[in-house]
Order: sequence, then structure tokens, then C-alpha cells
Amino acid sequence: MGKYVIGIDLGGTFIKAAAFDFNGALLVRSRVATGVSKGKQKVVDNIVAAINSIKGSLSGDDLAALGIGVAGIIDVGNGAVVKSPNFPGWEGYALLEQLNRAVRKPVIIENDANASAMGEKWAGCARDMQNFLMITLGTGVGGGLVLNGELWRGEHGRAGEFGHMKVEIEGEPCGCGSDGCLETRCSAKAITRMALEAIKAGRATSLAEFFMGGQAGLDSEKIHRAALAGDAVAIEIYRTAATYLAMGISAVINLIDVTNFVIGGGVSKAFDLFAPQLRSEIARMVFGIDEKLIVIIKSQLGDDAGLYGSAYLALRSLAGRSNPENAAL
Amino acid sequence: MGKYVIGIDLGGTFIKAAAFDFNGALLVRSRVATGVSKGKQKVVDNIVAAINSIKGSLSGDDLAALGIGVAGIIDVGNGAVVKSPNFPGWEGYALLEQLNRAVRKPVIIENDANASAMGEKWAGCARDMQNFLMITLGTGVGGGLVLNGELWRGEHGRAGEFGHMKVEIEGEPCGCGSDGCLETRCSAKAITRMALEAIKAGRATSLAEFFMGGQAGLDSEKIHRAALAGDAVAIEIYRTAATYLAMGISAVINLIDVTNFVIGGGVSKAFDLFAPQLRSEIARMVFGIDEKLIVIIKSQLGDDAGLYGSAYLALRSLAGRSNPENAAL
Repeated sequence: MGKYVIGIDLGGTFIKAAAFDFNGALLVRSRVATGVSKGKQKVVDNIVAAINSIKGSLSGDDLAALGIGVAGIIDVGNGAVVKSPNFPGWEGYALLEQLNRAVRKPVIIENDANASAMGEKWAGCARDMQNFLMITLGTGVGGGLVLNGELWRGEHGRAGEFGHMKVEIEGEPCGCGSDGCLETRCSAKAITRMALEAIKAGRATSLAEFFMGGQAGLDSEKIHRAALAGDAVAIEIYRTAATYLAMGISAVINLIDVTNFVIGGGVSKAFDLFAPQLRSEIARMVFGIDEKLIVIIKSQLGDDAGLYGSAYLALRSLAGRSNPENAAL
Repeated sequence: MGKYVIGIDLGGTFIKAAAFDFNGALLVRSRVATGVSKGKQKVVDNIVAAINSIKGSLSGDDLAALGIGVAGIIDVGNGAVVKSPNFPGWEGYALLEQLNRAVRKPVIIENDANASAMGEKWAGCARDMQNFLMITLGTGVGGGLVLNGELWRGEHGRAGEFGHMKVEIEGEPCGCGSDGCLETRCSAKAITRMALEAIKAGRATSLAEFFMGGQAGLDSEKIHRAALAGDAVAIEIYRTAATYLAMGISAVINLIDVTNFVIGGGVSKAFDLFAPQLRSEIARMVFGIDEKLIVIIKSQLGDDAGLYGSAYLALRSLAGRSNPENAAL
């Protein structure tokens, strides 16, 4: 018998959950459909179902705390979803209160990229990093900034919005209401859009075959495979994405002199393809820092980083560890 | 009789010095020519002359410590100039050691924008700000970042290089070796360059008269005055500078959720001209933060911010106050 924590990745399609011992070893997983269209209460029920599935596997053991990571703007203090792309209509929803009631254990809620950062810090490739930025290149682009070993949330809890740093004075419209955001160049969605633009412009590319079936047939993984097979348009698209990503990363380095970066999210599957271009562009764009000091690595935990991180944050909340000096766990 | 600290602004043309009591009141000033062309030792002699001039005015009082602010990359720990635009050939020069020998009092050396930030925090408009970015729009563009009430120097002491955040994928070459840096759009030099480009392109502008005497006749203050007089080209140039400055500031807000900005340097004399455009562009570019929370103000101490700040940092070094918790002074 032992105590464990559960981390949950609340996605738009699936709820992924996993139990961890206090040393960061993953014990058991579960996954259920999110069921967004069936309403808030149904989603909470589904989260509870995912938890109960784990509890069943670990009978006799004791759930100590629960952490949940959600894409979007999260009010960590009040445990509410301020705005999430996956949960339209949830603005201000007090998810934490609902889960507290259902689970009767300490619950924390966190932005998914912040959770991923702390996951890599607990059990992944950022264990030895006191200062780093976790970058999630998924449908959107997220960021989780760790300074002095702790999440840096900023004045109003909104820090880490790396994907909305503006990199073009007049760029593509972004879902956030601005335009020219990094997300419009480096997300899976942006990579797909750039491929569609090339196809529509009549450029010679093996990607054109996917267009026959409409936009749905094309995604960033197919473009990645085409680039590996030597398709010039696909290679160029990843080079463009890497160059803009370098703009964002070099801005971070120049501004706060944080030089460790962990790249996660679906697009990071193409890391080996774009990393050389990314590194050489960053070296060109930084001021006064030797490029040898800059570490850009691929996420070690991959899609599980958020699970680990939300579990870790739940574990730490138990000890009231809000202070860097107490961050031994 | 009392104790005082001296702050020094070591510029390319003048050495400005001032004595302050421990509460931040300016007691007396001095100014001497820098004499860069006469070599390092002559500059040190001139610094000592500026100090002695102050000592003469405050006879009977006691110099407690000395702080010196220098543009460029400063190795604060070793008290050396790593690279400074005003002091070619000073790479690695152990200025602190030389001054220690000459003055026989504790000396600190700091980047000028960092010093300016701490000046505004001590005795200017940032007294109540725990988190803010000082932006100096001068010949170049500098930055001094304060987090939790302390200078944030980053992993390698290079933080705050706001002027070298890249804002254009293919921009004007920058003195740092990269291109498209914020500095190539928002510095006094950039504003002058944009005016020259407009004149050379044959655009109708009152600024053309200054061109008759060559580039030297034109500067950002003349362009400011022309804008105030309604010159469309001059107005457009300041609008362009404000839009790129908004890109940089909104990137800072989105990344670290710091929402207080103090604008200093020579270009800040045009603050009232460009601030409305700056604020509205920032509001458009930030994600998830109410624009009412964003504070953009003009430096209160103006050209003296660096003097105050280097004196303050010297004062704090006396108490070994490296810790945020001890920052009461």
C-alpha cells in the first residue's frame, strides 16, 4: 500500500489520466472521451470516471491529490478556466470547485504548457535546469517558463504565452485576435496552412495529392514525411517555421537570458528535421551570448509531459511548497 | 557631516557624476570630458577628477561607495567591460579594479540601462513597481528588467537586451551583427535613418532642408519637432517606431506578464507624440491581459536615471544586499 497522485490532461477530445508515485514513476494510466458537446457536468463526470478507473487498478492504495492541465488561460488561484480554445462557453467555469466536490481530495488546475514544463522538470529532460522555457508546438503554440526552478506566472498569472509573441508586423490573423503571432508560423495548423498556400499557388510538390481529398487530408506529419522524402516545398515550410521559432527563442534569450529550451507538442516529432536550421538562426540572432551556452532539446516525456507535470504540481501543493527554497520534491 | 554615495554615468563623450545621500537626494554634480581617444588610463584619471570635484564640494563628508554605469555588455561579477559601443578596444578591461585602486572605496559597475532601471526604482517613477522593464531609447535601445524588486540578470548576466529582440524577419543590419533588431526601428539613429530614406525617396517633407547640410544636420529631435508641426513624413516615422516598439513590449507582456514599462533615453522626449499609438498597438497585440493593467510611462529622472541607479546599486552593495528580502533600502 502506498500513496499516489493523479495527473490529468484535459484535452478537447480525450481525458488522459495517470497515477504516479511520489518519485515520479508512472503507475497506471486511463483514457476516456472528453464529451465536450455534452456539457460541463458530463465532462466532470468523465474526469471522475478516469480517476475511478485508476483507483480501481490501485485498490488499497491511497490517492493523495489530483492535478489537471488545461489548454488556455487558467486562473490558478481560483481554479477556474478563464478561456480555453477546447472548451467554448467555459469562461469563468469553476472547474476546481466541481472536482473538489466530486473527488474530495486536494485538486490543482494549471495551464497545460506550464504543467508540461514542470513535468519535464520532475521526470524529464529539464531535471537539472533551473531556468528554461518549455515550448509546446501543437495545434497552437504554448509556453511554460521556469525561473529559479519555479513556474514564473507573472503579475497576473498570464506569463508564458510564447505562441502569441508577434513576429510579423503584418501577419496572418491569429485566433487570439491579433495577427502575426508566432503561432501563425510554427503551430501544426500554421504548417498545414503554409502547405495549402503552396499547393493553391500551383507549386510542384508531392503534397498536392493530399489536397484532392480536401484540407482534411493534409497535416503537419504528412508534410514532415514529405520533407524527409526530399520534397522541396515541405522542406521550405519547415525552414520557415524554424526561422520564426528562432526569432521567438532569440527574443527570449535577449530579453531574459534564459538559454535552455525544451520543445514538445506534435510538431516536435519533426525536431531532427528543423533543429539544425533553428540552432543556426538563433546563433545569428542572439546578442552577447555564446551559442555554445544555448541548449535546445526535444521533450523527453512527449505527450505525457502534461500528465507528469499536473501530478507533480498536485504533489507539491500538498506540502504548501510555494517557495523556491522548498522545491526539493 | 554625513555619508554619501556617488553615481557615475560613463558616456562616450562626457563623464557625469553626482553625489546622493542615502535617501536618494542629489547633493552635487560634476561633469568632465571622457577623453576616450586618449586611452583607458586617461579615462580612469578623468573619472577620478569627476569624483574629486565632488569630494571638494562635500569636504568633511565621507564617500561611502561608488557606482558606475556603462553602455554595453558588462561583467558585473568581475567588474569588467565585456563589450561597449562607446569604448572600442576595451574588451575585457578590468575597470572596477582600476577604480578600486584609485578611489579605495567599494565600487560597483553595471550596464547603463540596468542602472537606469534601479534609479527609477530608488527615486523615480518605479518606486512602487516590483516588476517592470526600463527601456532606454537612445542612440541604441537598452533595457533593464526588474523582477520581484531586483534586477533580473539571467543565466549569464546578459538579460535586458530589449533592443536586440528581432522584430523583422529581414530587416536593417544592426550593429550587433544580426538584423531586424528593435534598435533598427526605435533608436534615435533608426528614426534619423528612416527620415533620410524618405528624403532620398523624394517624399515631400520639411525635413529635406536639413539634408542640404548632409546627414549630420538631421536628428531625432528635429524629426520630432517636424512631426509636432504636422509634417506627414515625420509623423509616419514616429508611428512606425511606435508600432515596432509595441511589438517588443507586447512580446514582453505575453512572455513574462510584466506590465509596467518606463521609457527613457533621448527619444522619450517625443513620448507624448508616440504614446497614444504605442498604447493602442500594444492593446491589440497582447493576449489575455486587460489593457487597463498595462502601464507605459515616461522616465521621471530622464538623463539622470543612470546616475541615481549606479549610486543606489553602490549603496546597496555596502549592505551586501544581494537578496530580494533585504531590499528595503
